[in-house]
This record gives sequence, structure tokens and C-alpha cells, in this order.
Amino acid sequence: MSSADLAANGAAGEPVAGPAGPAPEVPADVGLLSPGWAGSPVEAATGDHAFLQAMLDAEAALARARAELGLTPAWAADAVGAAARADRFDARSIALRSPAGGNPVIPLVADLTEAVGGDAAAHVHRGATSQDILDSALMLVAARARRLIVADLDRSAAALAALAAAHIATPMPGRTLTQHAVPTTFGLKAAGWRHLVLDARDRLAAVELPAQLGGAAGTMAAFGDRALDLGSGYARRLGLAEPLLPWHVLRTPVAELGAALALAGGALGKIAADVLVLSRTEIGELAEGAGGGSSAMPHKANPVRATLIASASRRLPQLAAVLFASMAAEDERPAGAWHTEWEALREALRLTGGAARHAAELTADLRVHEGRMRAHLGATRGLIVSERLAAAFEPLVGRAEARRLLTRASRAAAADGLELREALAGDPALAGLIAPERLRDLLDPAGYLGAAPALTDRALRRTPRPQSSDR
Amino acid sequence: MSSADLAANGAAGEPVAGPAGPAPEVPADVGLLSPGWAGSPVEAATGDHAFLQAMLDAEAALARARAELGLTPAWAADAVGAAARADRFDARSIALRSPAGGNPVIPLVADLTEAVGGDAAAHVHRGATSQDILDSALMLVAARARRLIVADLDRSAAALAALAAAHIATPMPGRTLTQHAVPTTFGLKAAGWRHLVLDARDRLAAVELPAQLGGAAGTMAAFGDRALDLGSGYARRLGLAEPLLPWHVLRTPVAELGAALALAGGALGKIAADVLVLSRTEIGELAEGAGGGSSAMPHKANPVRATLIASASRRLPQLAAVLFASMAAEDERPAGAWHTEWEALREALRLTGGAARHAAELTADLRVHEGRMRAHLGATRGLIVSERLAAAFEPLVGRAEARRLLTRASRAAAADGLELREALAGDPALAGLIAPERLRDLLDPAGYLGAAPALTDRALRRTPRPQSSDR
Amino acid sequence: MSSADLAANGAAGEPVAGPAGPAPEVPADVGLLSPGWAGSPVEAATGDHAFLQAMLDAEAALARARAELGLTPAWAADAVGAAARADRFDARSIALRSPAGGNPVIPLVADLTEAVGGDAAAHVHRGATSQDILDSALMLVAARARRLIVADLDRSAAALAALAAAHIATPMPGRTLTQHAVPTTFGLKAAGWRHLVLDARDRLAAVELPAQLGGAAGTMAAFGDRALDLGSGYARRLGLAEPLLPWHVLRTPVAELGAALALAGGALGKIAADVLVLSRTEIGELAEGAGGGSSAMPHKANPVRATLIASASRRLPQLAAVLFASMAAEDERPAGAWHTEWEALREALRLTGGAARHAAELTADLRVHEGRMRAHLGATRGLIVSERLAAAFEPLVGRAEARRLLTRASRAAAADGLELREALAGDPALAGLIAPERLRDLLDPAGYLGAAPALTDRALRRTPRPQSSDR
Amino acid sequence: MSSADLAANGAAGEPVAGPAGPAPEVPADVGLLSPGWAGSPVEAATGDHAFLQAMLDAEAALARARAELGLTPAWAADAVGAAARADRFDARSIALRSPAGGNPVIPLVADLTEAVGGDAAAHVHRGATSQDILDSALMLVAARARRLIVADLDRSAAALAALAAAHIATPMPGRTLTQHAVPTTFGLKAAGWRHLVLDARDRLAAVELPAQLGGAAGTMAAFGDRALDLGSGYARRLGLAEPLLPWHVLRTPVAELGAALALAGGALGKIAADVLVLSRTEIGELAEGAGGGSSAMPHKANPVRATLIASASRRLPQLAAVLFASMAAEDERPAGAWHTEWEALREALRLTGGAARHAAELTADLRVHEGRMRAHLGATRGLIVSERLAAAFEPLVGRAEARRLLTRASRAAAADGLELREALAGDPALAGLIAPERLRDLLDPAGYLGAAPALTDRALRRTPRPQSSDR
Repeated sequence: MSSADLAANGAAGEPVAGPAGPAPEVPADVGLLSPGWAGSPVEAATGDHAFLQAMLDAEAALARARAELGLTPAWAADAVGAAARADRFDARSIALRSPAGGNPVIPLVADLTEAVGGDAAAHVHRGATSQDILDSALMLVAARARRLIVADLDRSAAALAALAAAHIATPMPGRTLTQHAVPTTFGLKAAGWRHLVLDARDRLAAVELPAQLGGAAGTMAAFGDRALDLGSGYARRLGLAEPLLPWHVLRTPVAELGAALALAGGALGKIAADVLVLSRTEIGELAEGAGGGSSAMPHKANPVRATLIASASRRLPQLAAVLFASMAAEDERPAGAWHTEWEALREALRLTGGAARHAAELTADLRVHEGRMRAHLGATRGLIVSERLAAAFEPLVGRAEARRLLTRASRAAAADGLELREALAGDPALAGLIAPERLRDLLDPAGYLGAAPALTDRALRRTPRPQSSDR
Repeated sequence: MSSADLAANGAAGEPVAGPAGPAPEVPADVGLLSPGWAGSPVEAATGDHAFLQAMLDAEAALARARAELGLTPAWAADAVGAAARADRFDARSIALRSPAGGNPVIPLVADLTEAVGGDAAAHVHRGATSQDILDSALMLVAARARRLIVADLDRSAAALAALAAAHIATPMPGRTLTQHAVPTTFGLKAAGWRHLVLDARDRLAAVELPAQLGGAAGTMAAFGDRALDLGSGYARRLGLAEPLLPWHVLRTPVAELGAALALAGGALGKIAADVLVLSRTEIGELAEGAGGGSSAMPHKANPVRATLIASASRRLPQLAAVLFASMAAEDERPAGAWHTEWEALREALRLTGGAARHAAELTADLRVHEGRMRAHLGATRGLIVSERLAAAFEPLVGRAEARRLLTRASRAAAADGLELREALAGDPALAGLIAPERLRDLLDPAGYLGAAPALTDRALRRTPRPQSSDR
Repeated sequence: MSSADLAANGAAGEPVAGPAGPAPEVPADVGLLSPGWAGSPVEAATGDHAFLQAMLDAEAALARARAELGLTPAWAADAVGAAARADRFDARSIALRSPAGGNPVIPLVADLTEAVGGDAAAHVHRGATSQDILDSALMLVAARARRLIVADLDRSAAALAALAAAHIATPMPGRTLTQHAVPTTFGLKAAGWRHLVLDARDRLAAVELPAQLGGAAGTMAAFGDRALDLGSGYARRLGLAEPLLPWHVLRTPVAELGAALALAGGALGKIAADVLVLSRTEIGELAEGAGGGSSAMPHKANPVRATLIASASRRLPQLAAVLFASMAAEDERPAGAWHTEWEALREALRLTGGAARHAAELTADLRVHEGRMRAHLGATRGLIVSERLAAAFEPLVGRAEARRLLTRASRAAAADGLELREALAGDPALAGLIAPERLRDLLDPAGYLGAAPALTDRALRRTPRPQSSDR
Repeated sequence: MSSADLAANGAAGEPVAGPAGPAPEVPADVGLLSPGWAGSPVEAATGDHAFLQAMLDAEAALARARAELGLTPAWAADAVGAAARADRFDARSIALRSPAGGNPVIPLVADLTEAVGGDAAAHVHRGATSQDILDSALMLVAARARRLIVADLDRSAAALAALAAAHIATPMPGRTLTQHAVPTTFGLKAAGWRHLVLDARDRLAAVELPAQLGGAAGTMAAFGDRALDLGSGYARRLGLAEPLLPWHVLRTPVAELGAALALAGGALGKIAADVLVLSRTEIGELAEGAGGGSSAMPHKANPVRATLIASASRRLPQLAAVLFASMAAEDERPAGAWHTEWEALREALRLTGGAARHAAELTADLRVHEGRMRAHLGATRGLIVSERLAAAFEPLVGRAEARRLLTRASRAAAADGLELREALAGDPALAGLIAPERLRDLLDPAGYLGAAPALTDRALRRTPRPQSSDR
């Protein structure tokens, strides 16, 4: 900003950025500590360059919306639009000047004003405040990242639907508190995963992402008589929702977005948790297709995708908490709560986006070892269906007696390393009660799947809610 | 549970509770550390007694839904229903026996079985697992607490609508980063608060609260062929939503509830933050009607309600984070994540309920000191409208020059303790540019309210979304 | 408080509590949702009754410390001390009157004043503020709970030392990212658990718990000339540390306590995480002694203690976060941040105390199945020592070639279901390189334990730091 | 890594990174959303380049420590050391290959092996696992960042000591729950701030930062007989502490570091909270020296530094929570918990470092407006010393009567807009009780500072704990 003059960027309450000077060289961050999202589509969509462009998009949309109402000459709006290309600006220099006023918009407006130059320069950022631009940019970036995330969630949902259908009758042990309980199916598990993914996807798709245009303190005073119309046009040009009120300190959109991302993290985290358990060396019912494949150690197929998803799901709840806490924002612009949102929201988008990408590939390539699942149904030597046997014996000897006898047989089986079938046969009180063939059927875990197939079928009929536009 | 027998409560994987014995006397908790919700309606609705009753309600609903399908004799279901009254059970004894199996349902089922007695006893908890009962109870309690919370949010919204309408043209300083920026109105502030309250209210009202009925591992296997019908009837009797799948490890309902409560905490926290600022001794634009009234010190009217609301809003984000994190629940029942939800969800309901009650009373009784607001508009001696002056001078001398001159006058005013009006008059370059009457008008903060009244009006037309049933 | 009079409890800024009236009956909370700590020693030590007594202890200590300096007559201090017994007060009534002023001390002082009666009544709470009493009570309760927690951590450490020593040479698979990596020992694992427990124990024992005495705004003004001496005597009588400054808004003690409790939660959470993995049905290397024993299902020994510990460890980080966030406390007493600490700190003490108790019992009763551990070392058919083989072949054929050949053999073993030994024997390039006896030794996982025994031994020489007093 | 061969980086369990290929161009992050730390010293110290160098430092230290024990030839160690310069490596390419194995060490080792080349290449990363290198790098980076942070905390402490000394007798209103309570001094406030800063500084300086060297699963098996000696030498060369045990899954160092950083955030957050209150337009007792200075609006000196510090203090508790939660790390290397730490710890270091830098400058430049402080002491027209008056009247008329009469006078003053002095004079019951001169003295707020100066003096005698080395 060459002249230290009044209301340099057209809004009250915005300090002037200091002189730019040459930006010290500091090697930039390129994702070295972030295998969870490095190289993912959402990385670029949420990078500093993307934010810079989104802020410039907001400035251009403002100029054009003004022009549409005759508040700014068309040629001036064109000039602003033409200059608003991120490649022309030095993001590092802007970053270094941002601490002076507490946000990057102040130096950006200075640089944009200079880039536009001439008479059109006076039409840059006219009537707006830094928060208008930064919040709109947050929503634009969120909208763009959301598209990528929803697409990857949809890929997961599709892969899971296929898995659920293919394994609708694949029996496996149901496990509770780490122990085998009763049989279930892999189809039902996959259908449950899909259900969660759709919950998250629908929730995320439904979050309203509004444009922000309130001026210095949310009254739109510097926009004049056509302020509400200007707000409409601005939002329309940005492809964002038009809010009922400027939301400088009404942070529902950011909090809801954080919540939806945490929900997605939880949904994917559930899948990862199960994959991690089921691909343990001793269990081996599932394996990541690619795995952290090691040519060195064929036995070592690290579930790397699940690991990275699990890692993301450990951070998202905390980031959502930060965003919820920022709602308690005092005054017409808070001193801290707003500033806290930027990095937290970006990090949440990235972690979710990375996890969604990993999940899409994990679910597409997941290897299901039905043989291991079936073998494990026998790991407790019949005890996995003791619930069923109790129900079968009850009509014959009464509920209490059925339980007493089964308990005795179960203990005998455990103590002597017998199959429950053998223990039952060896127990004089039970031996003849049920015909051997019927007993064999009762002891077949694959015959005790309950409503698992029906539930899977019902869940697969759920479809994603039709997605609204990005608004 | 007198007999140590098989599958005592009809589900696999549930340990038998140890003998009850006499419960050691420990004085109970009565809200001593919880001024935020002690004595509030939601306190009783979420207390141990309420949870005990809700668990019994779930047991009764199961028996009756079974009877409806002919799975249990009607007389047995009646017996279960008649016994399922919390007053008959010793909550402390149940609590003390809960660590053995890790949840209170196991000892409760033992006690309920004994209370029912006779032949009907065999029909208690039939086919269910502890989680079915506890999760359904969580949802029942949540539904009951939600009604109270939504009612209090509605009271706040109504009070705020009245405040916004009454003060649609009451000017006050807009404040950003703690400093006066440009004028705003109290009406717009109150309308914004209401907008947030409605956001939270609609969100909370929309959360689906489903019944839980999955059996030992979510396959409903012990319910037989009519399992899906049983699930419908059970949900209907509880007045809860019928889920597409058992959600033992598909925790969207709990996470969404936590998020909605945190959103409410944020909305109310925003109101509290503003009230705390505006009732500071030096500001005094608002005061709580009752205040932490001190007969001792007339000057000391502590904003106690706002303080307690603010306190709640500091905890809710963390509790939501706990609930989001519990979504990553391994297997068919996780070893820890589920257990973590109970206290966290109850605490979240209580904190929100207490805050909603305090907010309803705070907004109903809020005292608005328009005189102080008006007086503060002059605190910066005219600088609060410098944005407007710059716009007025721009057509006369150009944008840059207008700013330069205004900056000079502003500094002179600040340095000499003058009104900006005086400094402008004393500046030869500006003195004659604008006629004195017009300048006086321009300098009137009440004349620079922008779209505040129009926005207030628009926001007041928003109505709460029609509430669905508790489902 | 019968008379509405000035500075009722001797401190500025404290509102008068409203009339008590009959306390509405609401069934109290007795731990129904809290199997993690219901019935544990720390439950009673942190209950409402304990807090009530601790607040009364602080009032008594103040009166007596004043008497010691001649500021209050001895008979009056005696009267206050005699009255300060929690059994005489109605905690529910105090709780219900607490919202009016925002804390329970205001009604408590009213009730204590009345209980003392006569001329001595004027000496109740003299010069103090509510926060002095409540903060001192928090520290007293924390000190008492800490003793219990440290004792249970010491029990765990002792049990783990015995386990580590007993199993110093018990080999088992080392697992990374859920997969077998190289062998380790159960002794080293137990020694690591103990190391963490000692870290947490020493940290918790080192937290300084200071008395609080600052008066209305931390200047001790109402205590007169002997204020600093009074502070010393007060702290001494409470058995708490004497702080350098009143810490109304210098919340290091609370934040540090929260951090130490979260550290303990993390330490115990690590143990629980390992126990949960190693007691899975398919793994079964460990089992909880008691287990969530089910007479019904001998195969089902739910790791209930580990589950409840894991649950506690999921909440403690969030509670620590709440306490850290409360440090940013504005003014001389913040409007919300302080109020947030009470419940959060109590909950943290309870969760840690319950987890420490469960851990003490878990570690004392843990069953170690060495046979399963040994069996699992063979689960990868030799691949668990491939790192060792590579090192052995390297001097013979060079590093790269050694790896290439081993990779080939490993793949062959995996593909054909062979032992690695067989695959190596069948590979012409490797067949004769190493003598069969030597190869057999190299392939023995029990021979590749590295420094595990030495590390275990070294770690067991660590002793707990000598504990300071409760100060 | 050109050859897909066994145990490429010498450790079990580490997958081979995929082919590098040309790194897609993605504009890097340069701090655009981070005014809190962009351009601060800690930014560079914690950037990707710094992490890359730290990982290489760890590799070099390992080679050299091996050489010292004769395990690796000196020339080979020299070659590794010579190659281990971050400038030679492509951080982006490493980042892009990191998802395959889940961490950046795997591709880094491949690249380093290639860079070393020749016979020395076989000595790269020998016996180590990825976690050894990454954890050691985390500690190295933490040690370097800590030095910067402690230095800035020391600068703040020094500036605050000077402020406290200079204002030891500067009276100002003490504020509780946003209302004036009794007088205090700015010296005591500054001394309290310093006390917190020293708490945080001492805590941070005391955290032990250990080297990590455990091998594939923490047994150091691939290091041979001299493993423990190697661990010592490795730590010594890195300038890090030597741990008693490899701490792959004993995460006390990371959790303690997170806690210390959150404590620092809390300490600085308290200062920021006070500065934000006291620099409000209506209060103006403090101002940031530079302020978010606006040439446009002389009245607008945004407290930007305090805002950015406050923002940091809102995120640090959540980051500490993430790190505490990562302690519950299953097995010998967890699938997710470890991966979560990297970004969270870096972010915590940066936010703290940025806040410490801003605080050092804020405290150095803080402007204290004693006149405003003094003026505000009169804002309640005498009521700020009502506590003192009550004590003065008590000996004359008894405690209850003194309060009753003062309450009456206070109300009269408030109702009629009188000074309390006038109201007292006008009350027949109080009029003659105290001589006018004595009453005037009693009513002087500057005469009721209690022990504030003595406490300030005592607190200023505290010195920072002598700092240990970085170990």
C-alpha cells in the first residue's frame, strides 16, 4: 500500500499493513509430515495458493456485483477481475505482512490495489471489510474441497455396496469387547460402514456455505441503499448461498462444517478401526489390497491406509471442538476466535479429504478372506452359538435348567479342550434331548445369522440424498 | 441374579453381575459444583433416576412389542411392565455392581428378573443385549431433555424477537477487535442472537433419536423370524425413530446429538459473551435483570447468568469431541468407546439444558440502557463515522486526497482532544467543502446505520422449522 | 441469609443468595452411568459431601489462622471450627441456591454464619472471597484424592515390576502397525508399562497444591497488615502449599493437575490398549484374572477392567484441555473460566482414580499365557526373524544380494505355505551357505530378543521419586 | 529406491516406498493463514526443511555412533554424514512417496542410500526403524524450537518485571465477573503475568527430550551386543537425553511437551485476555505500543498482538489433548496414534513460538495509561471501597448495622447519582460517626491496596529455574 491514507481498504477498523520489503527466504512446507493427505486432491484445493485465489475471487465478485448495480463502472470491475489472479501475487510477502493487522487480506488488498492501478484502483474492496473477503474465501475453498470429499465418499459407498452385496451371506464372528460373541456376516459389516459413510456424506453435502458481505461491522453501511441487492449478487457470482444476515459473528456455517467433517472422520475411522483389527496377523480376515507392501517381508502387509485414516480420525474431533468454541465470539468481530478458525478449518478439510481418498482406495481394493472368517467361527469350539443352544434347550427342560446344563457343558469343553458338541454328547442330562442331526445344525454358526442378510438388504436400498448445489 | 446360569439376560457375551450385598453408604451428588444446571428442569430429566426409569421403559417396551407379535404371552409382558418402575429398584446397588460387567444393565436385568418373578421372569430382556437397553435409554432421556431444551430455546428466541423489534433503530457502537468501528443497532445484535438460537434449535430438533435393538452382535438373531417387525414395534412403543440398522457401532445418532448440543452451547455462548462485554462497569449498555444482585453493593450487578452460560459453552465443544471420537468403534461392540459416551452425553445434555434455562431468563429480563449506547457513540469524538466521511469527501477531492485529509484531521482531533467536527472545521483544506448542516448530519452516528434495520426486519421473518416428533 | 445487608460474607463483589426455601426433591446421582469409578475410593473422596467438608475446612482454617494472629478471638474461631461439619448442612439446599450468585460458597457462608450464631458469627469468612474457599477446597479434595490415586499407581507399579521380572525372558511377537515384526519379551512390555506408570505417578506427586487466600480481588486488603502471615498460617493449617501470590487468575495449579491426571490416563490407557489386543479371542496371550466372567459362556472373559480404563483414558485429554483453556482468565476473576474448572477437575480426579483402581487390580491378577505367546512366534513361519537372517547372509553374499535372495525365499514360503526354513533349503543359491544347525539357531525367535532382557533389567532399577508432602 | 530388495532400510516391518517419479507441482504453503507465527523464528525452526535436516542429523548420528563402537567403518560414517544435508534432497518428492508406507523416513532412507552410494550405502540406517529417526527428529526440532521459545518467554518475563516494578503502586480497579470489585495495582497484575510466564518457562525447560533408538520393535536386536552403548553414543551426538527405554510406545516425552506448550499458551493467553479487556475503547487503560496501527483511524489501535496470542491459546489445549490421547498406543508401534503426533506437535510448537514472540514484543512496548486507571477508580463513585468502609463502621455500630446503613447509603448514591461520600454525609445515622478527614482517607481507593505492593515485591524475587541443557 503506497499511501498511508484513510480507510485504505475501504473499511473501518482495518490497520494499514507495513511496507512489504523483500520476503526472507524460508523453505516452504510441502507435506513432509502429512502422509495422510500429501498428494491428495484436497491438498491443492486447500493450499495457500487456493486460498489466495479464493480471496481474489471474492474481490472480483464484489467488483462485478457492484457493477451490475451500477455502483462501480463496468470497466473498473473488469480491471479488478483481470488483476485477480493468484499467480500475480507473492503469497509469502503477504503472509509476512499479515501479522501487522492480524490477517492476510489487508496486505492483499494493498497489493491488488497496486496491481489494478489507475482509476480502477479506487474500486478495489469497496465497502468491504477483511472478514468479508476471508470468510467468503473460506467458504469457496470449503465448497471446492467438499466436492472432492463427497466424490470420494461416494466412491467408498459404491465399493462398500458391492462388498456388502457380495458378502451378504459370508459368515464371520461377531465380536464384542474383543471377544467372539455370536456370528454375523461381513455383508452386514460392510453395509454398516456404507451406512455411516452415507450419513457423513449427506451431512456434509447439506451444510450451507454462505457468502459473507457485511462491511466494517455487519451493517453493510458502506454499500449504500442497494446493500441487500449487492449481497445477493455477490453470493450468486461466487456460487455460494446468500445468508439471511452477515455472519461475522454468527458462526453456524463454520461450526456445522467442522461438525460434518468430524462426522466423516468418525465414519471413516470406524472402517479403519475394523480393518486394523481384522488384518492383524493372528486374524487376517481382511487385508488392504496394496498394503504397505514390503517386498522385503511378504508376511508384512501393513494396513497403511487404515492407519492414516485412523490418524485423521483422531484429530478431527479436536478441530471440530476448536470451531465450536469459536462460536462464542464477542462483539461484531472477536479478538481471537475468528482468527483461530482459519487454520483449524483448513486442517479439518485436509484431514478429511485425505482420509476420504485413502478410504476410497482401501474399500475398492479390500481383500476379504472368507476362509479365515469361517475358520474363526470355530475358534471357540462351538461356544459362539451357545445363545442359540440355550434357546433350543429351553422348551425341553425350562430356561434355568437349560442354562445350568449348558454352562456345565461349556465349562467341560473349555477344560478338556473339547468341541462343545462333544461335551454336550458326553453330558448325560443333555445327551439324548436333541437329535444329533438337529444338534449339528444348531451348532453350525452359518445357520445362526439372524436378520443379517435382511438388514443388509434393507440398508443397501438407502440412496444418497440428492445433493444440492454448493450453496 | 440368584442363579449363576447361562446367558442370564438372554444375550451372548454378557457377564453375570456379582452378588449385590448391602450397598455401602456414600453421600450422593446433588449438584453442589453445578450452579449451571442445579435445579433446572433438565437436571431431573437426566438424573440417575431418570436413566433407571428409561432403561426399565426399554425393557417394558421390548416385552410388550414381543407380546404384540405373539413372541411373549401378554400376561408376561404385563408383569414386566408392571415391575418396571424405577422406584422399586436400588440405583446405588446397581451402580456398585456395574463394574463387574462394565455396565448397569446387567445387574438391572438381574434385579428386574427377580422383581418380576414367577413364570414371567423368563420373558425379561429376552433376546436383547445390554447395549439395546442402555442405548435406547440414552435416546429416551435425550428425547425428554430435548423437549425441555427446545422449549427454553424457543423462549429465548421469542424474547430476542421482541428485543430486536423494540430496538430496531437503537444505535450503539459496533465493535471489532475490542475497538469501536462503525455504528450498529442493538436490534441487529439481538436479531443475530435469535438467528443463532434458531439455528441451534432447528438443528437439535432435527436430530434423529432412534431406538436400539440388535441383540448380542447386531444381527437380531435371538429375536427369530419376526426380528424386523419386532424392531418396528419396539421403536414405536418407545416413541423413538426406527433405525435402518442396529446402530451398536454406527454412532451417528450420538455424535449428531453431541454436535447439536455443542452448537446450542456456541449460540448461547455468543449471547453470553456479548452480555459480559456490554455489562462491564465501564460499558454498562446491558444488565441482567436480576443480576447476581447484591443488596450490599448496588454497583455490583454481576452478570451471573451470562457467566454460567459462558461456562457451559466452554465445556460443550470438548464433550462433542469425545462423542465424535467414540464413532471409531471397533468390532460389533467396542471396548471403551461406547462406555465413554454415557457420562459425556448426559453432561452435554445438562450443560445445554442449564444454559438454555439461564438464557431464557436472561433474555426475558435483559435491561437495555439506550442512553449508554448513545453516549458511547460519541466516545471516539466522531471517528466512529470516519468511513462515512471518507466516502462523502471522495467525490470532491478524490479518494486518496480525501483519505489523506481525513487522516490529518483525525490525528489533530486525537492529539488535541477535539471533536472530529472541530478538527475538520479547523483544517483549511476541508473547511468549506461541505456545508455545516450536511457535515453535522454526516457526523451523526445514528444516521449511519446502513442496512441494520432492514436486515433486522428480514431476520425476524425467519420462523422455527416445524418440529418433527421426538423421532 | 436472613438480612439483606452489606458485604454479607465479608467480601466485595459477592451477591447475596436468595432465600433457601424447601429444597425440591430430586433423586440424587449415585454413579449409575459410571462403572469406571462407582464404588472406588476416589468416588467418596470427591463427592459433594467431601467438597462441602473441604469448603468448611477452609472456613475453619481461616478462622483459626486469624486467631493465631490475634485477628479473631480464639473462642470465635473455636465456634467456627465446631460448626464446620458437613453433616450439619443441607448440600442440596446450597446447590439450589448457588445459581443466584454463581457458586456454592455464598449460600454456604450464609448457612455457616447462621450455624455459628451469636457473636462468633461475625468472624465467619472474614476478609475472604468465595474463590478463596472454593479453590482451597478444590486443592484439599485433590490432595486427598491424589493420595488414593498414587497409592493405586504404586500398586500397579509393584505388580508390573513382578511381572517384568518373572517374564524377563518370555518371548512373544513384537507387533507394529498390527503386524508381527520381530520378537520381543513380555518382560520388556511390562517394564515399559511400569515406566509409564512411574512417569505418571511422579508427575502427579510433584504437582504443587496451594492454598488460596486473596480476598475480593487478590490484594488481601481486607486482611490488614498481617495478610502475608495470615496466608502462611492458613496454608499450614490446611496442609497445602503456600503460594507466592494469590492465584485466583494464575491457574497453573489446576492446569498442571489436569495435565498430570491426563498423563496418568495415558499411561493406564496404554496398558489397557495392550491388554485389549492381547486378550482378543484369536490372540489370547493375556487374560484379566477376574474378567467380566460369565458363567454362561466360559469362552467369554471380557476384559472389563481394561475396557473401563480405556474409557477413562478417552475422556481425560479433553478434560485437561478444558483446564488448560481456563488459564486464559480475564481480570481478577473471570466470568466463566473459573466456574468451568470445578466439574472438570472433579471428573478428571474420578476418572483417573477409578482407572488407577481398576489398573491396580488388573495388573495384580493378570494371567499371562506364555504358551500362546510362543506359539504365535511361529505364526509367520519364520518371517518374524527375516531381519536377523538378512544380517547373517550379508557377509556371505553382500547386502543387496542377501536381501534379494531372502525376498525370493520369503515369497516362495508365503506362496507355497512353507516354513521359511524349508524355502531357504529349497533355494539353490542359499542352500549351502549356512550350516543347518546354525540356520536352525538363527531361525529360533527366542534367540533374537536383542537387548530386551538388559533393558528390562535397567528399567526395573528405576524407583519412584520420593514423594513430597501433599504440598 | 531402485531395487526392490529385502529390508531396504535395515529394519523389519517397513514397506518399500514406491518409485519417486517427477513430483507434481503444487504451490507450497507459506504461512498465508497464519499471522500468529508467519515470519517468526520458530517458523523456520519447525518447517519441513528443518524436519528433513533433523531426520538426516539422526541418520548421521547413528552412523557416527556406530563408527565410534567399531560397528561401521569410519569412512562409511563420514560418507553418510557428508551426504546428510537437507539441501540435497527433494522434500516434496519424499512427501509424495510417504503415504505408501505411512511415513517420510522410508523414502528418505531410499534417497539417502542412493546419495551416499558405493560401499558406504550399506551403512545407512543400519539396524534402525523409521520411528527411531522420526522421533529423534521430533525431539531435535523441539529442542531447537524450545530454545527460541524460552528466550522469548524470558524476554517477556524481563519486560513484565520492569512493568511490575515501575507500577508497584499504580492503583487501578480490580475487576471480578466483569465488575469493579476493590482496587488493585497494575504492578500486581504484571507480577502475576510474569509469575505465569515463569511457570510456563520453567515447565517447558524441564521437559526431557530423549533420543529414540529401539530398532524394529524396541528391542534393539539389530544393533547387536553393544546396543545400549550405541544408544548412549547416539543420544550424546544428538545432544538429546538418553532414555532408560526406547519409547516407541512410551510417549511421555511427547505428551509432556504438549502439556508444557499448552501451559505456555495458557500463560500468554491470560496476558492477552487482560490486554484485550483493558484496551477496549471504553477502558483504554492499556494499549499495544505498535497496535494494529491504522493511519486511517487514529482512534483504532487494534490490539493485534493480543488477538493473535489469544488465538493461539485457543488451539493449544486441543493439540495437547491430541498428544495425551496418543499415549494409549497399542503394541510396539500403534496404527495411527503415532502418526497423529507429528503435525499436532509441530503445530503446537509453532503456535507457542509465535505467541511467545508476539508476547515478547507486546510486553516490551505496552503502554500503560495510569490516568485512565485512576479515573476508573472513581467510576463507581466510591462504591469500590465499600468493603473498607464496612470494616471501619463495624466497631462503631456493629457488623450488621454497619452493613445495613452502608447498603442504604449505597443505594441512595446509586439512585441519586451521588458520590458515596455525599450519600454518607446525608445519612443521619452515619453523618457524624467518622470525621470527614478520616472518611476522605477511607474513600481514597489508592489507600486500599492491601498487600498488593508487598506481594508484587515478593513475586519479583522469583527467578527462573536454571535451565538444564537441551537434554
